[in-house]
Amino acid sequence: MANSRREFLRKSAALTTGTLAAAGAAQAAPLAVPQTNRQPGHGMEETAYGLPSKFEAHVKRRRSDVLKNRQNLSDWSMTPLQYQPGIITPNGLVYERHHAGTPDIDPATHRIAIHGMVKQPLVFTMDDLHRYPSVSRFHFLECSGNGLTDWLKPASTTVQQTHGLLSGALWTGVPMSTLLEEAGVDPKGTWALLEGADASAHTRSVPMEKMLDDALVVYAMNGEALRPENGYPVRALLPGWEGNISVKWLRRIKVGDQPWHFRSETARYTDPMPNGKWRQFSMVMETKSVITSPSGGQKLKGPGFYEVTGLAWSGTGKIRAVDVSTDGGRNWREAVVEEPVMDKSLTRFKIGWNWDGGPAMLMSRAVDNNGYVQPSVADLQKTRAIVGFVQHHNAIQPWSVNAAGEVRNAINQA
Amino acid sequence: MANSRREFLRKSAALTTGTLAAAGAAQAAPLAVPQTNRQPGHGMEETAYGLPSKFEAHVKRRRSDVLKNRQNLSDWSMTPLQYQPGIITPNGLVYERHHAGTPDIDPATHRIAIHGMVKQPLVFTMDDLHRYPSVSRFHFLECSGNGLTDWLKPASTTVQQTHGLLSGALWTGVPMSTLLEEAGVDPKGTWALLEGADASAHTRSVPMEKMLDDALVVYAMNGEALRPENGYPVRALLPGWEGNISVKWLRRIKVGDQPWHFRSETARYTDPMPNGKWRQFSMVMETKSVITSPSGGQKLKGPGFYEVTGLAWSGTGKIRAVDVSTDGGRNWREAVVEEPVMDKSLTRFKIGWNWDGGPAMLMSRAVDNNGYVQPSVADLQKTRAIVGFVQHHNAIQPWSVNAAGEVRNAINQA
Repeated sequence: MANSRREFLRKSAALTTGTLAAAGAAQAAPLAVPQTNRQPGHGMEETAYGLPSKFEAHVKRRRSDVLKNRQNLSDWSMTPLQYQPGIITPNGLVYERHHAGTPDIDPATHRIAIHGMVKQPLVFTMDDLHRYPSVSRFHFLECSGNGLTDWLKPASTTVQQTHGLLSGALWTGVPMSTLLEEAGVDPKGTWALLEGADASAHTRSVPMEKMLDDALVVYAMNGEALRPENGYPVRALLPGWEGNISVKWLRRIKVGDQPWHFRSETARYTDPMPNGKWRQFSMVMETKSVITSPSGGQKLKGPGFYEVTGLAWSGTGKIRAVDVSTDGGRNWREAVVEEPVMDKSLTRFKIGWNWDGGPAMLMSRAVDNNGYVQPSVADLQKTRAIVGFVQHHNAIQPWSVNAAGEVRNAINQA
Repeated sequence: MANSRREFLRKSAALTTGTLAAAGAAQAAPLAVPQTNRQPGHGMEETAYGLPSKFEAHVKRRRSDVLKNRQNLSDWSMTPLQYQPGIITPNGLVYERHHAGTPDIDPATHRIAIHGMVKQPLVFTMDDLHRYPSVSRFHFLECSGNGLTDWLKPASTTVQQTHGLLSGALWTGVPMSTLLEEAGVDPKGTWALLEGADASAHTRSVPMEKMLDDALVVYAMNGEALRPENGYPVRALLPGWEGNISVKWLRRIKVGDQPWHFRSETARYTDPMPNGKWRQFSMVMETKSVITSPSGGQKLKGPGFYEVTGLAWSGTGKIRAVDVSTDGGRNWREAVVEEPVMDKSLTRFKIGWNWDGGPAMLMSRAVDNNGYVQPSVADLQKTRAIVGFVQHHNAIQPWSVNAAGEVRNAINQA
């Protein structure tokens, strides 16, 4: 394998671009001197917030090609995972989801209230929040609707469209437990309401157990303030749970003794069951993975060595292993999982593959630290009904490769 | 301590913003409903590369307030560390340093050559590079000139000015060892030349031992392509070594049997010694730390609890511990070091502090996994001469706090 890779790559580099002269002769002019060596570059700008190269303009968030949902500004855009190495999504590319547009909130006037079943209701300014002991943690964020266009047959082309309601970041904020402790939660206070300051007043009910476990009130991501579309100046973060529970533009936390059954807990964000009923409060994002390269819409440049790489994540803990198949699930090999592997965080996996030029089917299958194995669509159909806009799609994603090297979405075709 | 913090914060939140009514009465209208709850927000843009809130315009890279160095476009800008939580610098704020401006390089035409004392000279396109097995690693990057304006007395105001030639990122690329193995290094090839495609043709000599250890050829940072000012489309990364050795816009790697003594190894990037001679090839960035909050230019809002937090890093390995003093070094307490702690990476430390309202002097002192302890300026003066533009300033940074809460640079004043 290693020798094959080396041989292939040596041939490739030599044949495609030509070899240099022998070492001695190459010293003076191994390459034509490029124009950029001959003329000064750009100076620095005082505006001084940098942007990507103009040659990377294709790397951007995109809306769904399949579903358009812009009533009352309700909308989403997806992360270009096919271009993202590692486990962090740059803030400019973190996926967006809102129900009534992104508000412009002045942090100087924003307030967060804690009230309801507490000893002492409190109101916090952003300055107050910044005074508290903070934590920074790597976590993924995934919309429960990620993949809902692609259950039974391929509708989307790229991994951005099939899986791009997913991002990874280093989040900074104050533990919910710290703020709730300040207010003093009534022992009968078993649920909390989280409400946003946006025009949908997006609101969710969260069990107190999660609030006191690892929930955060977050004001920064990836080393700077939250972006407006991701909740500026402050949001909730419920690690490992469906994205919409991590209420953005957070303005209110109310403690109660039962869930409120908000619109987003009845009309939306529920799951159809085989018996015709709908499941509520399915908050945890179950263990999942996807190959990001090679992935749908890409084209392999001839037989030879490729690195197959992708992302794995689990709302219940850490990724223990990822298996990869290149023959539609007949044979599986264990991929390398790159450190650091962190709780409820994106995890990067990689494995070498020598493509022989024939048809192939690439699939990845994640295993978490509880031993849960990522299912196929067929497995999921045994316990779920696939009707309407079905959330919580964590099935294995197959990508087919044809003899021309074209990579295509093959969901439920393997 | 914990009780004091809680009591202080409870008082603060209650007194500064007013308490809510009792829980029952507060249910209907715990806070005035903000205007953002009443009107739709902004829709999504198809341009779709996000930017920070307009309320964060003060968070930007800045040039030095003390030194201006713009001959032939040679320039630098610094990261606003006082606003950066965690261990990642957003790409838009990663510090810049170049000797002749930032070139615009088209990745489709860019080439990297490996030649000199190798069996098979090779030329790589960017597509070739992307075919190789990749790694992603968290590492800090620091300019050896970081802090050179502030040795013997305070010249700079903020931590951005004293320490902002420092950033942290998740870097993705191909190990140098992989590419050198492809070319086949002559056993007598003990050094490598790295040359950039910019107008300064910035060039450095690197020992082969480092090249084969942990050096990378990097094409992405923090989950996207390198930014133009940070080496797009490809740069070297020599983890833990002074920034300028991690040659940007990399176009050539030549293997030889001795260093080349380039301009940046003789006229620049050398260190004055007490005997009047200058030390060459002092590549390793030694263990260092700095408190980023409270830091110079900030103002404490009255006595009470504060979180003292900052960054620690080591070019030789991992951070083992960080001690913090609030009384100018008479007493030290061990701070909490936040996971993950990684090799040659920024590491975040935190510790609580109850400010009594009197004069104080805040200092941090890092200890690495070799037992090396970050020195004072006085310690460094025993082995170094402080004349001219002195590089490799890793001394303890004191910040003074006066009774008005004003925080000031107190380098060499403690």
